[in-house]
Amino acid sequence: MRAQSKDKVPSTGNRQPATGNLHFSTGTPHSFNPTSEIITIGDEILIGQTIDTNSAWIGEKLSLMGIPVLRIISISDHPDEIRSALRDSMSRSRVVLVTGGLGPTNDDRTKATLAEFFNSRLVVDPDVIGDIEKLWGRRNIPISKVNRDQALVPHNCTVIRNPNGTAPGMWFESAGTIVIAMPGVPFEMKGIMDGGVLPKLAAFFNAPPVLHKTIMTTGIGESAMAAIIEKWESALPENFSLAYLPSPGMVKLRITGRGEDTGIVREKLETLTDQLSTLIPEWVYGYEDQSIEEVVAELLTQRGLTVCTAESCTGGLIASRITQLPGSSAYYKGSIVAYSNEVKQTQLEVSASQLQRFGAVSSEVVGEMASHARRLLKTDYSVAVSGIAGPDGGTPEKPVGTVWIAVSGPGGTVSERFFMGEHRGRNILKASQSALNMLRLRVLKDATDREKIF
Amino acid sequence: MRAQSKDKVPSTGNRQPATGNLHFSTGTPHSFNPTSEIITIGDEILIGQTIDTNSAWIGEKLSLMGIPVLRIISISDHPDEIRSALRDSMSRSRVVLVTGGLGPTNDDRTKATLAEFFNSRLVVDPDVIGDIEKLWGRRNIPISKVNRDQALVPHNCTVIRNPNGTAPGMWFESAGTIVIAMPGVPFEMKGIMDGGVLPKLAAFFNAPPVLHKTIMTTGIGESAMAAIIEKWESALPENFSLAYLPSPGMVKLRITGRGEDTGIVREKLETLTDQLSTLIPEWVYGYEDQSIEEVVAELLTQRGLTVCTAESCTGGLIASRITQLPGSSAYYKGSIVAYSNEVKQTQLEVSASQLQRFGAVSSEVVGEMASHARRLLKTDYSVAVSGIAGPDGGTPEKPVGTVWIAVSGPGGTVSERFFMGEHRGRNILKASQSALNMLRLRVLKDATDREKIF
Repeated sequence: MRAQSKDKVPSTGNRQPATGNLHFSTGTPHSFNPTSEIITIGDEILIGQTIDTNSAWIGEKLSLMGIPVLRIISISDHPDEIRSALRDSMSRSRVVLVTGGLGPTNDDRTKATLAEFFNSRLVVDPDVIGDIEKLWGRRNIPISKVNRDQALVPHNCTVIRNPNGTAPGMWFESAGTIVIAMPGVPFEMKGIMDGGVLPKLAAFFNAPPVLHKTIMTTGIGESAMAAIIEKWESALPENFSLAYLPSPGMVKLRITGRGEDTGIVREKLETLTDQLSTLIPEWVYGYEDQSIEEVVAELLTQRGLTVCTAESCTGGLIASRITQLPGSSAYYKGSIVAYSNEVKQTQLEVSASQLQRFGAVSSEVVGEMASHARRLLKTDYSVAVSGIAGPDGGTPEKPVGTVWIAVSGPGGTVSERFFMGEHRGRNILKASQSALNMLRLRVLKDATDREKIF
Repeated sequence: MRAQSKDKVPSTGNRQPATGNLHFSTGTPHSFNPTSEIITIGDEILIGQTIDTNSAWIGEKLSLMGIPVLRIISISDHPDEIRSALRDSMSRSRVVLVTGGLGPTNDDRTKATLAEFFNSRLVVDPDVIGDIEKLWGRRNIPISKVNRDQALVPHNCTVIRNPNGTAPGMWFESAGTIVIAMPGVPFEMKGIMDGGVLPKLAAFFNAPPVLHKTIMTTGIGESAMAAIIEKWESALPENFSLAYLPSPGMVKLRITGRGEDTGIVREKLETLTDQLSTLIPEWVYGYEDQSIEEVVAELLTQRGLTVCTAESCTGGLIASRITQLPGSSAYYKGSIVAYSNEVKQTQLEVSASQLQRFGAVSSEVVGEMASHARRLLKTDYSVAVSGIAGPDGGTPEKPVGTVWIAVSGPGGTVSERFFMGEHRGRNILKASQSALNMLRLRVLKDATDREKIF
C-alpha cells in the first residue's frame, strides 16, 4: 500500500506523560494548532459485540477540517475509567469528543461523571425539554420520566441540540480545552456533529479553510495509478496534497488544499481536480464519495432509461446494490439470478448448445444472458455476469476468479473477460463493481455517440 | 437495550495514573486477574479511512477467555506515540496487544521502536526466513529485500509464526507484563492469534477454563425474550451467566460458565443450553454464530432439497446472502427479482387481476410469486417477498415497513405479514432474515410431519 505521506497525523512531540492533575499542551488558547482525541464509552465495544464505526466517521470529519486525531480510545462506562481517560486526553489534546453512555436506557453514569468532573450540577434545559415534548407529541406517547431526565444537563455546559433523538450534545470548556459529549447512536451523533459541533469548532478556532475534492476511480490499482499520475503529483503546488484511499475494487483520490483565501483555494482545487481527471478519464466514475450504483442511477434517471440484470456468480448482489437506493424502481425492473444452468436455459433462454460448447463462463453464454434478459424484461440496457467465484469450480483454462461480463443495449451486446482473484467474497464484490462500471461506460458512450450523430 | 450486567468489564479501581516510568498493577506475576489493552497503529484509522475491526475481534476472544479488555487505543505510527501508548497501557494492564505497522510496505517504524523500547537488537530469525522462502517458492517469485527484512526480529522476543503472511508475531515479556505485536491485516492477525497467541496466553496465566455456548434466535426482540426467560435466568447457578447480544433481526444468547473442572462445566453448560432452547423453541434457529443462511444450507443439503426465490422489495438480497456461501449451487437454483409489476406478470406469471385487486404487497400476489417461481424454476421449495421498504410508497393501510412473505413447498403455499420499521436498509435486511427463517421453519415442519406419517 502507498503511504499517505502527506496526510500524516502530527505527533505532539516530547510532551510530558499524563499525570493525575489537569495540565495542557503548549499553545495559547484559540491559536490554530489543535489536535483532537475521541473517547468512545461502552462495554459492547470492549467485548467485541459492536464495531466502533463512530470514531472513523468523526476522525474523517476532524481530519478534513484540519484538526487531526491523535488518539482514539475505547473504555467502559465505569466512572474511574471515564475520569482517567478524560484526564489523559485533555493533557495531550485541545479537543476531546466523547460518544456513548448517554442514551435513555443507559445507567447514565457518563452524564453524572461529566457533571462531577466539571464541578457542575444537573439542571433542566428548557430547549431540550421542548424538543422532547415535540418528538413525543409526534408519536402520541406519554413522556416517561426516563426520557424527561434526558433534559437534565450540567449547568456549565453549552447544550447542542440533537435533531434525531432526546439526549443532547454537551460542550464543555476548561482552560482552553474543549470536551464534547454526545450519544453513541450513530444517526444521533452525526446529526449533533453536522448541525452543531463542527461549525462551532470551526468558529472557535477561527480555522483557516481546508478544502477537499475527492475523485472516485475503479478498474485500476493503486500502484498503476500512481505511476500514471506521478509527474502531476510531484508538481502539486505548495499547500496542496494528494491522498490515495483504496478499498476492494476502487481507489479514492483526495486532493486537499489550504490557504487563507477560500475563493482562491476552491478555484485552484477545481483546476487540479479537472487536470487529474483528464489524466485518468477511463477510470474516474464519480466524485465526493458517490458509489458506482449512485452514478448509474443518476445517468439512467436523467436520460429516462431502464435496466435489468442477469446474474450467475454475483448471485443477486448487483440487483441488491441497485435496489438499496431509494427510488431505484424508476429505472430498475429486475433480475434473473440464473445460478443453475437449467435456469439459464428455462428463464434466460440460453441455448443448450452454447452452454455445452463454450461452458457457462464464456463470452457466448454471458452475451446471450444479457441480450435475452434485455428482451424478456423489456429494458433499454441489461448487464449479465457469469464467473467462477470459488473456492471450487476452477480449471486450468478457467481458474477461480475468471469472470465474463456482458452489457446489452440499443447498439448491441459487448462482453469482456476479467480476472478477479482467489477469494470468493471479494470476487463477487469486484465482479459486481466491474459490471456496474461497464454499464456506466456503455450508457455514457451511447449518449456521446448520439450527440455526435445529431 | 438490556444491559449486559453480568458481562461488565471490571475497572482496575483506584490505580495510579500513568507516569513516564514503567510500573505495574498489583498482583503477583502469573496470578489470574489480568486485564488487557489493545493498541492499533495506523494513520488510516485516525483519518477515518479504515474502520478498526481487529479490536472487536480481539476483544471478543480475550473477553471469552476471561482476560477483559480495559482500553482499546488507536494511534499513529510515530515512535513517540508508540512509546507513550505502550507505557500507558503497560502501567494499567498485564497484557498489551499491538496490531499494525508491521507490513512489508510499511516504514516499519513500529518494529524499530519496539526493539528500542525493549532494549533489543534486530536479528534474523531462521524459522521466519524459512517460512518466507516457502511462501515465495509457492508463488515462483524471487524474494525481495523488503520481504527478507520481515525475518528481522528483536533478539529478546519470542517469535509467533504467521501462517498467512511474512511478518511474524512478536511476544515480549517485561516484569510480568506481556506485549504482543502483530501485523494489522485481519487475516494474518487472526492466524497468529488463533495458532499462537491465545493458547500461549492461556498457558501463561494457567487460566481457569471459561466455556461458552451461544444460542442464535430470530423473530423476537430482546425485551420480549427477557420476559419469557426471566425466571430461568434468575435461577442460573453460581459461575454461570447469560448475555444478550442483539443485532438487526436477531438476538444472540451467550451462556458462560467458569470452574476448575472443564468436564463438569461443559456438561452443565450443555444442560443449561438445552433448558433455554426448550423455553424458546420457535425462535432458536441455530448455535455458535451460525447465520440463518448457513442453517438453511445445512437443512437443504442433508435432505437433498432445492430452493429458489422470488424477490420484490428485498431486491436480490436473499439470493445474494444464499450465494455468498461456497457450495450453494448444490441446493440453490436462482431467483427472479421482480422489482416492477410488469416483471411480476411476465416473468412470474402473476395475474394482472390479482395485482390490480390486491396490490403488489398482498398475500395473494406474494403467494403467486412463490408458487409460480417454484414451478418455473423446478425446485422443492421457494420463498417470495413483497413489501414497502420506504422511504416512499407507504399508504395508511400499508405503511412503510409492511412486508408479505410466502413459502411454497410440496404441501402448498403459506404467506405471512410482517411490520418491519421505518428505515429502508433495515427493512430490507429484516425482510431477508424473516424470509430465510420462514423457509427454515417450513422445511423443518415438513420433515417432522413426514416422520409422523411413516
